[in-house]
Amino acid sequence: MLPWAIRCGTFAHAPTYLRQHVIEFCNSCGARVAHRIPEGDMLTRAVCDACGTIQYENPKVVVGCIPVRGDRILICRRAIEPRYGLWTLPAGFMENGETAAEGAMREAMEEAHAMVEIEDLYTVFSVPHISQVHMMFRSRLVNDDFRAGTESLDVRLVTAAEIPWNELAFTVVRRTLEHFLADRESGIFVPRFGDIRAPVR
Amino acid sequence: MLPWAIRCGTFAHAPTYLRQHVIEFCNSCGARVAHRIPEGDMLTRAVCDACGTIQYENPKVVVGCIPVRGDRILICRRAIEPRYGLWTLPAGFMENGETAAEGAMREAMEEAHAMVEIEDLYTVFSVPHISQVHMMFRSRLVNDDFRAGTESLDVRLVTAAEIPWNELAFTVVRRTLEHFLADRESGIFVPRFGDIRAPVR
Repeated sequence: MLPWAIRCGTFAHAPTYLRQHVIEFCNSCGARVAHRIPEGDMLTRAVCDACGTIQYENPKVVVGCIPVRGDRILICRRAIEPRYGLWTLPAGFMENGETAAEGAMREAMEEAHAMVEIEDLYTVFSVPHISQVHMMFRSRLVNDDFRAGTESLDVRLVTAAEIPWNELAFTVVRRTLEHFLADRESGIFVPRFGDIRAPVR
Repeated sequence: MLPWAIRCGTFAHAPTYLRQHVIEFCNSCGARVAHRIPEGDMLTRAVCDACGTIQYENPKVVVGCIPVRGDRILICRRAIEPRYGLWTLPAGFMENGETAAEGAMREAMEEAHAMVEIEDLYTVFSVPHISQVHMMFRSRLVNDDFRAGTESLDVRLVTAAEIPWNELAFTVVRRTLEHFLADRESGIFVPRFGDIRAPVR
């Protein structure tokens, strides 16, 4: 498989929040790195010829949930980029040392001070143009004691009819909500996995 | 949530292949980093006070598949650590710019020169003590033109009765195969998600 930079272009034309900094130095010894394919590998890596460290860059996992209370769903209005001011489900980068479900619970607490009980994994989307995998869980919002966290402008419990479809922040969120509402109608929740590609410009 | 090093201990007592190097230098400008909680964050990060870069460390995704041909499954005997000499399903670290399914196909090709068609996502396991998420797909082995890749000592098509249960490399592989065989018996494949914790010593 071709190196990432060749397959997908660089992030040079992407918005600032997507632009990854280029690795120029070894984070282990501080020497300048070379960018080449290490022996036995197939992709270009940041290789330190001084101490032998290879800095790998891999996709990040975003974990989140659909917090449900009765017939309503908790959504958050973003106070940060990307998509400042648009609505989303609580979600964020998974951290080292936690499970995906723990990460989804943590994000609900951080973004909405919401206590949720995680039920089942519901949607898994690869988003290759930004090297992310999104995992969204069904969950139960335990009580009404929620409020906006520092990364949210507002937090609301909405019915299906009240979802602001034209002001949703991300395709992952829209597709997850669409599946959820259809499955709730049919009475059977079917996990979905798929890919979300960059829009063609 | 507590910083990773406090919650989970360091990798200091772990085998070499699990031990992560500590970030000491900024990989953007080469200055020495500080390890502290940045403003607005909740976890300790490697922060560069010279140029402002924060080096985040997040869980890695391992993608793999169950390559099925007739009633047999393709398994690989590992030629690398960890678990040299033990049997596994083709799997490895997901790379930037690919989807999870593309990564699983790539790994089958690299480890077993096996051409597979990915069917559905089947198991998703968090492995928090090593900060990994494993995603295993059901797949169809397209032909019999397979052979060991450089990371495999041997590659074989085995029936359920021939699976070397006592020589499997990883818990993820054992649990994925157990679910798969039970589901194949019942005729309905049900995606599973769960966690695999460190064995208590």
